[in-house]
Amino acid sequence: MATNLKNFMQVGRKIVAVGRNYRAHALELGNQVPTKPILFLKPTSSYITEGEKIKIPVGCSSLHHEVELGIVIGKPGSRISEQEAMNHVAGYVLALDMTARDFQDEAKKKGQPWSLAKGFDTSCPVSSFIEKKSLTAPENTRLWLKVNDAIKQDGNTKDMIFSIPFLVSYISTYFKLEEGDVILTGTPEGVGPVCEGDVIQAGLGDIVSFTFQVEKS
Amino acid sequence: MATNLKNFMQVGRKIVAVGRNYRAHALELGNQVPTKPILFLKPTSSYITEGEKIKIPVGCSSLHHEVELGIVIGKPGSRISEQEAMNHVAGYVLALDMTARDFQDEAKKKGQPWSLAKGFDTSCPVSSFIEKKSLTAPENTRLWLKVNDAIKQDGNTKDMIFSIPFLVSYISTYFKLEEGDVILTGTPEGVGPVCEGDVIQAGLGDIVSFTFQVEKS
Ligand SMILES: [Mg+2]
Ligand SMILES: [Mg+2]
Ligand SMILES: [Mg+2]
Repeated sequence: MATNLKNFMQVGRKIVAVGRNYRAHALELGNQVPTKPILFLKPTSSYITEGEKIKIPVGCSSLHHEVELGIVIGKPGSRISEQEAMNHVAGYVLALDMTARDFQDEAKKKGQPWSLAKGFDTSCPVSSFIEKKSLTAPENTRLWLKVNDAIKQDGNTKDMIFSIPFLVSYISTYFKLEEGDVILTGTPEGVGPVCEGDVIQAGLGDIVSFTFQVEKS
Repeated sequence: MATNLKNFMQVGRKIVAVGRNYRAHALELGNQVPTKPILFLKPTSSYITEGEKIKIPVGCSSLHHEVELGIVIGKPGSRISEQEAMNHVAGYVLALDMTARDFQDEAKKKGQPWSLAKGFDTSCPVSSFIEKKSLTAPENTRLWLKVNDAIKQDGNTKDMIFSIPFLVSYISTYFKLEEGDVILTGTPEGVGPVCEGDVIQAGLGDIVSFTFQVEKS
Protein backbone atom coordinates (compact mmCIF):
# COMPACT_ATOMS: atom_id res chain seq x y z
CA MET A 1 0.00 0.00 0.00
CA ALA A 2 1.06 3.56 -0.68
CA THR A 3 1.57 5.07 2.77
CA ASN A 4 2.75 8.48 1.71
CA LEU A 5 0.11 10.14 -0.42
CA LYS A 6 1.16 13.77 -0.21
CA ASN A 7 0.09 13.92 -3.87
CA PHE A 8 -3.43 12.51 -3.29
CA MET A 9 -4.92 15.55 -5.05
CA GLN A 10 -3.17 14.60 -8.29
CA VAL A 11 -3.38 10.80 -7.97
CA GLY A 12 -6.96 10.43 -6.74
CA ARG A 13 -9.88 10.46 -9.12
CA LYS A 14 -12.88 10.75 -6.84
CA ILE A 15 -14.19 12.23 -3.63
CA VAL A 16 -17.05 10.28 -2.07
CA ALA A 17 -18.80 12.33 0.58
CA VAL A 18 -21.22 11.23 3.27
CA GLY A 19 -24.24 13.37 4.14
CA ARG A 20 -25.78 13.64 7.62
CA ASN A 21 -23.28 11.47 9.45
CA TYR A 22 -23.67 13.42 12.69
CA ARG A 23 -27.08 13.27 14.37
CA ALA A 24 -27.17 16.90 15.54
CA HIS A 25 -26.29 18.15 12.06
CA ALA A 26 -28.98 16.05 10.38
CA LEU A 27 -31.52 17.52 12.78
CA GLU A 28 -30.34 21.14 12.46
CA LEU A 29 -31.24 21.11 8.74
CA GLY A 30 -34.63 19.53 9.43
CA ASN A 31 -33.62 16.13 8.07
CA GLN A 32 -34.16 12.69 9.53
CA VAL A 33 -31.24 10.74 10.96
CA PRO A 34 -30.29 8.31 8.16
CA THR A 35 -30.50 4.53 8.48
CA LYS A 36 -27.88 4.01 5.76
CA PRO A 37 -25.11 6.33 4.54
CA ILE A 38 -26.17 9.08 2.12
CA LEU A 39 -23.43 9.27 -0.51
CA PHE A 40 -22.60 11.94 -3.03
CA LEU A 41 -19.62 12.78 -5.25
CA LYS A 42 -17.44 15.86 -5.52
CA PRO A 43 -15.02 16.06 -8.47
CA THR A 44 -11.28 16.34 -7.84
CA SER A 45 -11.44 19.62 -9.79
CA SER A 46 -13.05 21.11 -6.67
CA TYR A 47 -9.86 20.80 -4.56
CA ILE A 48 -8.05 23.92 -3.39
CA THR A 49 -5.23 24.34 -0.87
CA GLU A 50 -4.23 27.15 1.47
CA GLY A 51 -3.47 30.32 -0.43
CA GLU A 52 -6.27 29.74 -2.93
CA LYS A 53 -9.68 31.25 -2.25
CA ILE A 54 -13.16 29.80 -1.89
CA LYS A 55 -15.26 31.32 -4.65
CA ILE A 56 -19.00 31.75 -4.29
CA PRO A 57 -20.44 30.04 -7.39
CA VAL A 58 -22.45 32.08 -9.89
CA GLY A 59 -26.03 32.51 -8.70
CA CYS A 60 -25.44 31.17 -5.17
CA SER A 61 -26.78 33.31 -2.34
CA SER A 62 -26.23 30.91 0.55
CA LEU A 63 -22.78 29.32 0.65
CA HIS A 64 -22.33 27.13 3.76
CA HIS A 65 -19.25 25.80 5.52
CA GLU A 66 -19.04 22.15 6.63
CA VAL A 67 -15.80 21.00 8.32
CA GLU A 68 -15.02 17.31 7.83
CA LEU A 69 -12.45 14.61 8.40
CA GLY A 70 -11.31 13.13 5.09
CA ILE A 71 -9.90 9.64 4.64
CA VAL A 72 -7.26 9.05 1.97
CA ILE A 73 -7.32 5.61 0.35
CA GLY A 74 -3.92 3.96 -0.09
CA LYS A 75 -4.83 0.45 -1.17
CA PRO A 76 -7.44 -0.13 -3.88
CA GLY A 77 -10.38 -2.42 -3.23
CA SER A 78 -13.97 -3.45 -3.80
CA ARG A 79 -16.31 -4.97 -1.23
CA ILE A 80 -13.82 -4.37 1.51
CA SER A 81 -14.87 -5.87 4.85
CA GLU A 82 -15.13 -3.70 7.96
CA GLN A 83 -12.34 -5.79 9.46
CA GLU A 84 -10.03 -5.04 6.52
CA ALA A 85 -11.10 -1.41 6.06
CA MET A 86 -8.35 0.33 8.01
CA ASN A 87 -5.71 -1.51 5.97
CA HIS A 88 -6.93 0.46 2.93
CA VAL A 89 -6.53 3.83 4.65
CA ALA A 90 -3.21 5.58 3.96
CA GLY A 91 -3.94 8.70 5.97
CA TYR A 92 -6.24 11.64 6.49
CA VAL A 93 -6.96 15.16 5.43
CA LEU A 94 -8.85 18.05 6.99
CA ALA A 95 -11.45 19.28 4.50
CA LEU A 96 -14.32 21.66 3.99
CA ASP A 97 -17.37 20.39 2.15
CA MET A 98 -18.46 23.81 0.92
CA THR A 99 -22.13 23.68 -0.05
CA ALA A 100 -24.32 26.01 -2.10
CA ARG A 101 -27.21 25.53 0.32
CA ASP A 102 -29.72 27.33 -1.88
CA PHE A 103 -28.81 25.12 -4.86
CA GLN A 104 -29.10 22.07 -2.61
CA ASP A 105 -32.47 23.15 -1.18
CA GLU A 106 -33.81 23.57 -4.72
CA ALA A 107 -32.40 20.17 -5.75
CA LYS A 108 -33.93 18.47 -2.70
CA LYS A 109 -37.32 20.01 -3.37
CA LYS A 110 -37.27 18.98 -7.03
CA GLY A 111 -35.75 15.52 -6.46
CA GLN A 112 -32.71 16.53 -8.51
CA PRO A 113 -29.00 15.69 -8.07
CA TRP A 114 -26.83 17.53 -5.57
CA SER A 115 -23.77 17.72 -7.83
CA LEU A 116 -23.85 21.43 -8.62
CA ALA A 117 -24.57 22.32 -4.97
CA LYS A 118 -21.64 20.23 -3.75
CA GLY A 119 -19.13 19.99 -6.58
CA PHE A 120 -18.51 23.49 -7.94
CA ASP A 121 -14.93 24.75 -8.33
CA THR A 122 -13.25 25.52 -4.95
CA SER A 123 -15.88 23.54 -3.01
CA CYS A 124 -13.26 21.24 -1.47
CA PRO A 125 -10.53 23.10 0.45
CA VAL A 126 -8.10 20.60 1.96
CA SER A 127 -5.09 20.49 4.26
CA SER A 128 -1.93 18.72 3.31
CA PHE A 129 -1.84 14.93 3.71
CA ILE A 130 -1.83 13.64 7.30
CA GLU A 131 0.05 10.40 7.80
CA LYS A 132 -1.95 7.62 9.40
CA LYS A 133 0.39 7.43 12.38
CA SER A 134 -0.13 11.14 13.11
CA LEU A 135 -3.83 10.68 13.84
CA THR A 136 -3.92 7.98 16.45
CA ALA A 137 -7.62 8.26 17.34
CA PRO A 138 -9.54 9.11 14.16
CA GLU A 139 -12.71 7.95 15.91
CA ASN A 140 -12.25 10.44 18.74
CA THR A 141 -10.80 13.73 17.54
CA ARG A 142 -12.01 17.30 17.77
CA LEU A 143 -13.12 19.07 14.59
CA TRP A 144 -13.67 22.82 14.80
CA LEU A 145 -14.37 25.75 12.50
CA LYS A 146 -14.39 29.52 13.01
CA VAL A 147 -15.71 32.29 10.77
CA ASN A 148 -14.00 35.64 11.35
CA ASP A 149 -12.66 34.31 14.68
CA ALA A 150 -16.09 33.29 16.01
CA ILE A 151 -16.47 29.58 16.69
CA LYS A 152 -19.24 28.01 14.58
CA GLN A 153 -18.57 24.27 14.60
CA ASP A 154 -16.98 22.40 17.50
CA GLY A 155 -17.58 18.68 17.21
CA ASN A 156 -15.85 15.38 17.69
CA THR A 157 -15.54 12.47 15.29
CA LYS A 158 -16.83 10.20 18.08
CA ASP A 159 -20.31 11.46 17.19
CA MET A 160 -20.29 9.96 13.69
CA ILE A 161 -23.33 7.76 13.07
CA PHE A 162 -21.47 5.45 10.67
CA SER A 163 -17.87 4.63 11.61
CA ILE A 164 -14.88 4.95 9.30
CA PRO A 165 -14.54 1.16 8.79
CA PHE A 166 -18.27 0.87 8.09
CA LEU A 167 -18.13 3.71 5.53
CA VAL A 168 -15.11 2.24 3.72
CA SER A 169 -16.87 -1.11 3.55
CA TYR A 170 -20.27 0.27 2.49
CA ILE A 171 -18.87 2.65 -0.14
CA SER A 172 -16.64 -0.04 -1.65
CA THR A 173 -19.68 -2.25 -2.21
CA TYR A 174 -20.79 0.20 -4.90
CA PHE A 175 -17.74 2.27 -5.85
CA LYS A 176 -14.38 0.57 -6.18
CA LEU A 177 -11.87 2.56 -4.19
CA GLU A 178 -8.59 3.56 -5.82
CA GLU A 179 -5.32 5.03 -4.60
CA GLY A 180 -5.68 8.68 -3.66
CA ASP A 181 -9.49 8.62 -3.51
CA VAL A 182 -10.88 10.60 -0.59
CA ILE A 183 -13.89 9.89 1.61
CA LEU A 184 -15.41 12.90 3.40
CA THR A 185 -17.04 11.59 6.55
CA GLY A 186 -19.68 14.25 7.24
CA THR A 187 -19.91 17.39 9.33
CA PRO A 188 -20.88 18.07 12.94
CA GLU A 189 -23.58 20.63 13.80
CA GLY A 190 -23.14 24.37 13.42
CA VAL A 191 -23.05 24.77 9.63
CA GLY A 192 -23.93 28.21 8.36
CA PRO A 193 -23.43 30.84 5.69
CA VAL A 194 -20.27 32.69 4.71
CA CYS A 195 -20.01 35.86 2.65
CA GLU A 196 -17.48 37.61 0.45
CA GLY A 197 -14.47 38.63 2.55
CA ASP A 198 -15.13 36.16 5.37
CA VAL A 199 -12.20 34.20 6.75
CA ILE A 200 -12.70 30.53 7.63
CA GLN A 201 -10.31 28.76 9.98
CA ALA A 202 -10.67 25.09 10.80
CA GLY A 203 -8.72 22.45 12.63
CA LEU A 204 -8.46 18.77 13.45
CA GLY A 205 -7.41 18.14 17.07
CA ASP A 206 -3.95 19.64 17.54
CA ILE A 207 -2.73 18.04 14.32
CA VAL A 208 -3.55 20.51 11.58
CA SER A 209 -5.40 23.75 10.95
CA PHE A 210 -5.93 25.95 7.92
CA THR A 211 -7.33 29.30 6.82
CA PHE A 212 -9.32 30.12 3.68
CA GLN A 213 -10.84 33.36 2.54
CA VAL A 214 -14.15 33.63 0.68
CA GLU A 215 -14.57 35.74 -2.42
CA LYS A 216 -16.95 36.24 -5.33
CA SER A 217 -16.33 34.18 -8.41
CA MET B 1 -4.98 20.83 -27.42
CA ALA B 2 -4.69 17.08 -27.13
CA THR B 3 -6.46 15.75 -30.21
CA ASN B 4 -5.84 12.08 -29.67
CA LEU B 5 -7.30 11.00 -26.37
CA LYS B 6 -7.48 7.23 -26.84
CA ASN B 7 -6.48 7.11 -23.16
CA PHE B 8 -9.26 9.41 -21.91
CA MET B 9 -10.33 6.73 -19.41
CA GLN B 10 -6.96 6.96 -17.65
CA VAL B 11 -6.32 10.69 -18.09
CA GLY B 12 -9.79 12.07 -17.29
CA ARG B 13 -10.91 12.64 -13.73
CA LYS B 14 -14.61 13.30 -14.07
CA ILE B 15 -17.73 12.45 -15.98
CA VAL B 16 -20.37 15.18 -15.96
CA ALA B 17 -23.72 13.85 -17.12
CA VAL B 18 -26.81 15.74 -18.22
CA GLY B 19 -30.26 14.52 -17.22
CA ARG B 20 -33.41 14.94 -19.34
CA ASN B 21 -31.78 16.52 -22.36
CA TYR B 22 -34.30 14.99 -24.76
CA ARG B 23 -37.90 16.14 -24.41
CA ALA B 24 -39.54 12.77 -25.08
CA HIS B 25 -37.32 11.06 -22.51
CA ALA B 26 -38.07 13.66 -19.81
CA LEU B 27 -41.77 13.08 -20.40
CA GLU B 28 -41.58 9.26 -20.49
CA LEU B 29 -40.36 9.25 -16.86
CA GLY B 30 -43.06 11.70 -15.78
CA ASN B 31 -40.65 14.61 -15.42
CA GLN B 32 -40.96 18.19 -16.63
CA VAL B 33 -38.84 19.42 -19.51
CA PRO B 34 -35.97 21.29 -17.82
CA THR B 35 -35.33 25.00 -18.26
CA LYS B 36 -31.65 24.62 -17.38
CA PRO B 37 -29.36 21.57 -17.62
CA ILE B 38 -29.66 19.02 -14.80
CA LEU B 39 -26.10 17.92 -14.00
CA PHE B 40 -24.79 14.94 -12.10
CA LEU B 41 -21.44 13.19 -11.73
CA LYS B 42 -20.32 9.66 -12.40
CA PRO B 43 -16.86 8.61 -11.17
CA THR B 44 -14.23 7.41 -13.64
CA SER B 45 -14.19 4.14 -11.67
CA SER B 46 -17.52 3.37 -13.35
CA TYR B 47 -15.97 3.00 -16.84
CA ILE B 48 -15.91 -0.39 -18.55
CA THR B 49 -15.06 -1.33 -22.12
CA GLU B 50 -16.21 -4.11 -24.43
CA GLY B 51 -15.40 -7.51 -22.98
CA GLU B 52 -16.23 -6.41 -19.44
CA LYS B 53 -19.73 -6.95 -18.11
CA ILE B 54 -22.35 -4.60 -16.71
CA LYS B 55 -23.00 -5.76 -13.15
CA ILE B 56 -26.34 -5.14 -11.45
CA PRO B 57 -25.44 -3.38 -8.18
CA VAL B 58 -26.29 -5.02 -4.86
CA GLY B 59 -29.92 -4.41 -3.96
CA CYS B 60 -30.95 -3.00 -7.36
CA SER B 61 -34.09 -4.49 -8.90
CA SER B 62 -34.52 -2.10 -11.82
CA LEU B 63 -31.37 -1.45 -13.84
CA HIS B 64 -32.09 0.77 -16.88
CA HIS B 65 -30.15 1.39 -20.08
CA GLU B 66 -29.62 4.92 -21.41
CA VAL B 67 -27.59 5.32 -24.63
CA GLU B 68 -25.75 8.64 -24.90
CA LEU B 69 -23.27 10.62 -26.92
CA GLY B 70 -20.21 11.49 -24.83
CA ILE B 71 -17.93 14.45 -25.45
CA VAL B 72 -14.23 14.14 -24.61
CA ILE B 73 -12.55 17.35 -23.47
CA GLY B 74 -9.13 18.01 -25.00
CA LYS B 75 -8.39 21.56 -23.87
CA PRO B 76 -8.94 22.59 -20.25
CA GLY B 77 -11.08 25.60 -19.43
CA SER B 78 -13.41 27.48 -17.13
CA ARG B 79 -16.27 29.74 -18.20
CA ILE B 80 -15.84 28.72 -21.79
CA SER B 81 -18.05 30.69 -24.19
CA GLU B 82 -20.46 28.90 -26.51
CA GLN B 83 -18.45 30.31 -29.41
CA GLU B 84 -15.22 28.75 -28.08
CA ALA B 85 -16.78 25.51 -26.84
CA MET B 86 -16.02 23.27 -29.81
CA ASN B 87 -12.33 24.20 -29.60
CA HIS B 88 -12.25 22.40 -26.24
CA VAL B 89 -13.70 19.17 -27.66
CA ALA B 90 -11.10 16.58 -28.68
CA GLY B 91 -13.55 13.92 -29.77
CA TYR B 92 -16.43 11.73 -28.79
CA VAL B 93 -17.38 8.43 -27.26
CA LEU B 94 -20.48 6.26 -27.36
CA ALA B 95 -21.61 5.56 -23.79
CA LEU B 96 -24.29 3.97 -21.67
CA ASP B 97 -25.47 5.85 -18.61
CA MET B 98 -26.58 2.74 -16.73
CA THR B 99 -29.01 3.74 -14.00
CA ALA B 100 -30.32 1.90 -10.94
CA ARG B 101 -33.80 3.32 -11.50
CA ASP B 102 -35.15 2.06 -8.19
CA PHE B 103 -32.29 3.72 -6.30
CA GLN B 104 -32.92 6.90 -8.30
CA ASP B 105 -36.67 6.84 -7.66
CA GLU B 106 -36.02 6.53 -3.92
CA ALA B 107 -33.46 9.36 -4.05
CA LYS B 108 -35.85 11.62 -5.97
CA LYS B 109 -38.65 10.96 -3.50
CA LYS B 110 -36.42 11.68 -0.49
CA GLY B 111 -34.59 14.65 -2.04
CA GLN B 112 -31.31 12.73 -1.80
CA PRO B 113 -28.31 12.61 -4.18
CA TRP B 114 -28.33 10.45 -7.31
CA SER B 115 -24.72 9.33 -6.99
CA LEU B 116 -25.32 5.71 -6.01
CA ALA B 117 -28.06 5.32 -8.65
CA LYS B 118 -25.79 6.67 -11.37
CA GLY B 119 -22.20 6.02 -10.32
CA PHE B 120 -21.89 2.39 -9.22
CA ASP B 121 -19.11 0.23 -10.68
CA THR B 122 -19.71 -0.71 -14.36
CA SER B 123 -22.36 2.03 -14.78
CA CYS B 124 -20.45 3.69 -17.64
CA PRO B 125 -19.73 1.34 -20.55
CA VAL B 126 -17.91 3.23 -23.30
CA SER B 127 -16.64 2.74 -26.84
CA SER B 128 -13.11 3.56 -27.83
CA PHE B 129 -12.28 7.21 -28.50
CA ILE B 130 -13.82 8.71 -31.64
CA GLU B 131 -11.72 11.39 -33.29
CA LYS B 132 -13.45 14.70 -33.81
CA LYS B 133 -13.08 14.50 -37.57
CA SER B 134 -14.83 11.11 -37.65
CA LEU B 135 -18.11 12.56 -36.35
CA THR B 136 -18.85 15.39 -38.73
CA ALA B 137 -22.38 16.16 -37.52
CA PRO B 138 -22.50 15.59 -33.74
CA GLU B 139 -25.68 17.66 -33.66
CA ASN B 140 -27.45 15.35 -36.12
CA THR B 141 -26.48 11.74 -35.60
CA ARG B 142 -28.52 8.61 -34.91
CA LEU B 143 -28.20 6.96 -31.49
CA TRP B 144 -29.72 3.51 -31.10
CA LEU B 145 -29.85 0.69 -28.56
CA LYS B 146 -31.11 -2.90 -28.70
CA VAL B 147 -31.71 -5.38 -25.90
CA ASN B 148 -31.48 -9.02 -27.03
CA ASP B 149 -31.81 -7.83 -30.66
CA ALA B 150 -35.03 -5.87 -30.05
CA ILE B 151 -34.73 -2.14 -30.72
CA LYS B 152 -35.47 -0.06 -27.59
CA GLN B 153 -33.99 3.38 -28.25
CA ASP B 154 -33.74 4.97 -31.68
CA GLY B 155 -33.09 8.69 -31.40
CA ASN B 156 -31.10 11.45 -32.95
CA THR B 157 -28.83 13.99 -31.31
CA LYS B 158 -30.75 16.73 -33.15
CA ASP B 159 -33.44 16.34 -30.49
CA MET B 160 -31.19 17.53 -27.63
CA ILE B 161 -32.77 20.39 -25.68
CA PHE B 162 -29.39 21.94 -24.80
CA SER B 163 -26.76 21.86 -27.56
CA ILE B 164 -23.20 20.61 -27.13
CA PRO B 165 -21.68 24.13 -27.16
CA PHE B 166 -24.25 25.32 -24.63
CA LEU B 167 -23.53 22.36 -22.33
CA VAL B 168 -19.75 22.85 -22.47
CA SER B 169 -20.22 26.53 -21.66
CA TYR B 170 -22.77 26.00 -18.88
CA ILE B 171 -20.89 23.15 -17.21
CA SER B 172 -17.59 25.05 -17.30
CA THR B 173 -19.21 27.92 -15.39
CA TYR B 174 -19.32 25.64 -12.34
CA PHE B 175 -16.88 22.79 -12.99
CA LYS B 176 -13.54 23.54 -14.60
CA LEU B 177 -13.06 21.12 -17.46
CA GLU B 178 -9.81 19.18 -17.72
CA GLU B 179 -8.17 17.01 -20.36
CA GLY B 180 -9.91 13.66 -20.69
CA ASP B 181 -13.06 14.71 -18.83
CA VAL B 182 -16.23 13.38 -20.43
CA ILE B 183 -19.65 15.01 -20.75
CA LEU B 184 -22.58 12.65 -21.26
CA THR B 185 -25.23 14.56 -23.17
CA GLY B 186 -28.42 12.74 -22.17
CA THR B 187 -30.51 9.94 -23.59
CA PRO B 188 -33.37 9.80 -26.08
CA GLU B 189 -36.66 8.11 -25.21
CA GLY B 190 -37.08 4.36 -24.84
CA VAL B 191 -35.13 3.67 -21.64
CA GLY B 192 -36.07 0.48 -19.86
CA PRO B 193 -34.93 -2.37 -17.65
CA VAL B 194 -32.35 -5.05 -18.34
CA CYS B 195 -31.87 -8.34 -16.49
CA GLU B 196 -29.12 -10.84 -15.83
CA GLY B 197 -28.04 -12.43 -19.12
CA ASP B 198 -29.41 -9.68 -21.35
CA VAL B 199 -27.25 -8.44 -24.19
CA ILE B 200 -27.19 -4.72 -24.96
CA GLN B 201 -26.02 -3.44 -28.34
CA ALA B 202 -25.80 0.23 -29.12
CA GLY B 203 -24.49 2.42 -31.88
CA LEU B 204 -23.76 5.95 -33.00
CA GLY B 205 -24.62 6.57 -36.65
CA ASP B 206 -22.47 4.25 -38.76
CA ILE B 207 -19.37 5.24 -36.79
CA VAL B 208 -19.24 2.86 -33.87
CA SER B 209 -21.26 0.17 -32.11
CA PHE B 210 -20.65 -2.04 -29.11
CA THR B 211 -22.08 -4.98 -27.18
CA PHE B 212 -22.26 -5.48 -23.41
CA GLN B 213 -23.73 -8.30 -21.40
CA VAL B 214 -25.52 -7.84 -18.08
CA GLU B 215 -24.76 -10.01 -15.07
CA LYS B 216 -25.32 -10.10 -11.33
CA SER B 217 -22.65 -8.51 -9.18
MG1 LIG C 1 -25.80 13.74 -6.96
MG1 LIG D 1 -20.80 17.48 4.19
MG1 LIG E 1 -28.57 9.68 -18.75
